[in-house]
Amino acid sequence: MLAKVYVTLKQGVLDPQGKAVGHALGTLGFKEVEDVRIGKYIEVTLPDLPKDKAEARVKEMCEGLLANTVIESYRIEL
Amino acid sequence: MLAKVYVTLKQGVLDPQGKAVGHALGTLGFKEVEDVRIGKYIEVTLPDLPKDKAEARVKEMCEGLLANTVIESYRIEL
Repeated sequence: MLAKVYVTLKQGVLDPQGKAVGHALGTLGFKEVEDVRIGKYIEVTLPDLPKDKAEARVKEMCEGLLANTVIESYRIEL
Repeated sequence: MLAKVYVTLKQGVLDPQGKAVGHALGTLGFKEVEDVRIGKYIEVTLPDLPKDKAEARVKEMCEGLLANTVIESYRIEL
Protein backbone atom coordinates (compact mmCIF):
# COMPACT_ATOMS: atom_id res chain seq x y z
CA MET A 1 0.00 0.00 0.00
CA LEU A 2 1.04 3.57 -0.65
CA ALA A 3 0.94 6.24 2.05
CA LYS A 4 1.06 9.82 0.83
CA VAL A 5 2.46 12.42 3.18
CA TYR A 6 2.23 16.16 2.60
CA VAL A 7 4.61 18.25 4.68
CA THR A 8 4.06 22.01 4.68
CA LEU A 9 5.54 24.90 6.60
CA LYS A 10 3.26 26.20 9.33
CA GLN A 11 1.53 29.53 8.77
CA GLY A 12 3.78 32.40 9.76
CA VAL A 13 6.99 30.52 9.08
CA LEU A 14 9.05 32.31 6.43
CA ASP A 15 9.48 30.30 3.22
CA PRO A 16 12.51 31.71 1.34
CA GLN A 17 12.37 28.96 -1.30
CA GLY A 18 8.75 29.81 -2.04
CA LYS A 19 9.57 33.53 -2.15
CA ALA A 20 12.38 32.88 -4.64
CA VAL A 21 10.14 30.78 -6.88
CA GLY A 22 7.37 33.40 -6.66
CA HIS A 23 9.85 36.10 -7.71
CA ALA A 24 11.16 33.95 -10.57
CA LEU A 25 7.60 33.36 -11.81
CA GLY A 26 7.06 37.14 -11.76
CA THR A 27 10.13 37.75 -13.90
CA LEU A 28 8.95 35.03 -16.32
CA GLY A 29 5.74 37.00 -16.92
CA PHE A 30 3.42 35.38 -14.40
CA LYS A 31 2.67 38.72 -12.75
CA GLU A 32 -0.62 37.45 -11.31
CA VAL A 33 1.11 35.15 -8.83
CA GLU A 34 0.44 36.46 -5.32
CA ASP A 35 2.30 33.94 -3.23
CA VAL A 36 4.11 30.62 -3.49
CA ARG A 37 4.75 28.17 -0.69
CA ILE A 38 6.73 25.00 -1.13
CA GLY A 39 6.41 21.81 0.83
CA LYS A 40 7.30 18.18 0.45
CA TYR A 41 5.28 15.33 -0.97
CA ILE A 42 6.45 11.92 0.25
CA GLU A 43 5.26 8.52 -0.96
CA VAL A 44 5.94 5.67 1.46
CA THR A 45 5.38 2.13 0.19
CA LEU A 46 4.31 -0.27 2.94
CA PRO A 47 3.15 -3.87 3.01
CA ASP A 48 -0.64 -4.21 3.23
CA LEU A 49 -1.74 -3.39 6.77
CA PRO A 50 -5.08 -2.48 8.31
CA LYS A 51 -5.63 1.19 7.56
CA ASP A 52 -5.61 2.40 11.18
CA LYS A 53 -2.36 0.55 11.93
CA ALA A 54 -0.70 1.92 8.79
CA GLU A 55 -1.84 5.43 9.66
CA ALA A 56 -0.44 5.12 13.19
CA ARG A 57 2.93 3.90 11.84
CA VAL A 58 3.16 6.66 9.24
CA LYS A 59 2.26 9.21 11.93
CA GLU A 60 5.21 7.93 13.99
CA MET A 61 7.45 8.30 10.94
CA CYS A 62 6.31 11.88 10.47
CA GLU A 63 6.87 12.80 14.10
CA GLY A 64 10.24 11.05 14.18
CA LEU A 65 11.80 11.95 10.85
CA LEU A 66 9.68 13.16 7.95
CA ALA A 67 8.49 16.45 9.43
CA ASN A 68 10.03 18.98 11.77
CA THR A 69 6.92 19.55 13.86
CA VAL A 70 8.27 22.77 15.33
CA ILE A 71 7.87 24.56 12.00
CA GLU A 72 6.08 22.06 9.76
CA SER A 73 2.72 20.37 9.73
CA TYR A 74 1.87 17.18 7.90
CA ARG A 75 -1.12 15.43 6.43
CA ILE A 76 -1.35 11.70 5.76
CA GLU A 77 -3.45 10.12 3.00
CA LEU A 78 -3.86 6.36 2.70
CA MET B 1 -7.60 31.01 -5.35
CA LEU B 2 -5.09 28.37 -4.43
CA ALA B 3 -3.52 26.07 -7.02
CA LYS B 4 -1.85 22.96 -5.65
CA VAL B 5 0.91 21.43 -7.72
CA TYR B 6 2.44 18.01 -7.04
CA VAL B 7 5.79 17.40 -8.70
CA THR B 8 7.12 13.84 -8.65
CA LEU B 9 10.05 12.08 -10.25
CA LYS B 10 9.06 9.92 -13.22
CA GLN B 11 9.11 6.16 -12.77
CA GLY B 12 12.56 4.76 -13.36
CA VAL B 13 14.36 7.95 -12.31
CA LEU B 14 16.64 7.29 -9.36
CA ASP B 15 15.61 9.13 -6.17
CA PRO B 16 18.67 9.28 -3.86
CA GLN B 17 16.87 11.53 -1.36
CA GLY B 18 14.05 9.01 -1.09
CA LYS B 19 16.52 6.14 -0.74
CA ALA B 20 18.31 7.99 2.08
CA VAL B 21 15.06 8.67 3.92
CA GLY B 22 13.96 5.05 3.43
CA HIS B 23 17.25 3.85 4.88
CA ALA B 24 16.98 6.25 7.82
CA LEU B 25 13.45 5.03 8.55
CA GLY B 26 14.80 1.47 8.56
CA THR B 27 17.47 2.31 11.12
CA LEU B 28 14.81 4.04 13.25
CA GLY B 29 12.89 0.76 13.48
CA PHE B 30 10.43 1.14 10.61
CA LYS B 31 11.61 -2.08 8.99
CA GLU B 32 8.35 -2.50 7.08
CA VAL B 33 9.07 0.45 4.78
CA GLU B 34 9.60 -0.90 1.27
CA ASP B 35 10.27 2.27 -0.66
CA VAL B 36 10.22 6.04 -0.26
CA ARG B 37 9.95 8.59 -3.03
CA ILE B 38 10.09 12.31 -2.44
CA GLY B 39 8.54 15.01 -4.53
CA LYS B 40 7.51 18.62 -4.17
CA TYR B 41 4.21 20.09 -3.11
CA ILE B 42 3.74 23.68 -4.29
CA GLU B 43 0.91 26.04 -3.37
CA VAL B 44 0.46 28.95 -5.78
CA THR B 45 -1.90 31.75 -4.73
CA LEU B 46 -3.61 33.43 -7.68
CA PRO B 47 -6.33 36.03 -8.06
CA ASP B 48 -9.74 34.50 -8.79
CA LEU B 49 -9.83 33.37 -12.42
CA PRO B 50 -12.08 31.01 -14.37
CA LYS B 51 -10.91 27.50 -13.55
CA ASP B 52 -9.82 26.59 -17.09
CA LYS B 53 -7.79 29.80 -17.45
CA ALA B 54 -6.12 29.30 -14.09
CA GLU B 55 -5.29 25.71 -14.96
CA ALA B 56 -3.74 26.76 -18.28
CA ARG B 57 -1.61 29.39 -16.52
CA VAL B 58 -0.43 27.01 -13.83
CA LYS B 59 0.38 24.43 -16.51
CA GLU B 60 2.59 27.04 -18.21
CA MET B 61 4.30 27.71 -14.86
CA CYS B 62 4.97 23.99 -14.42
CA GLU B 63 6.39 23.57 -17.91
CA GLY B 64 8.48 26.72 -17.59
CA LEU B 65 9.83 26.59 -14.06
CA LEU B 66 8.18 24.40 -11.44
CA ALA B 67 8.93 21.00 -12.94
CA ASN B 68 11.79 19.61 -14.98
CA THR B 69 9.63 17.68 -17.42
CA VAL B 70 12.55 15.55 -18.59
CA ILE B 71 12.62 13.68 -15.30
CA GLU B 72 9.57 14.94 -13.41
CA SER B 73 5.83 14.79 -13.90
CA TYR B 74 3.32 17.12 -12.30
CA ARG B 75 -0.31 17.17 -11.31
CA ILE B 76 -2.39 20.32 -10.81
CA GLU B 77 -5.33 20.61 -8.41
CA LEU B 78 -7.54 23.68 -8.29
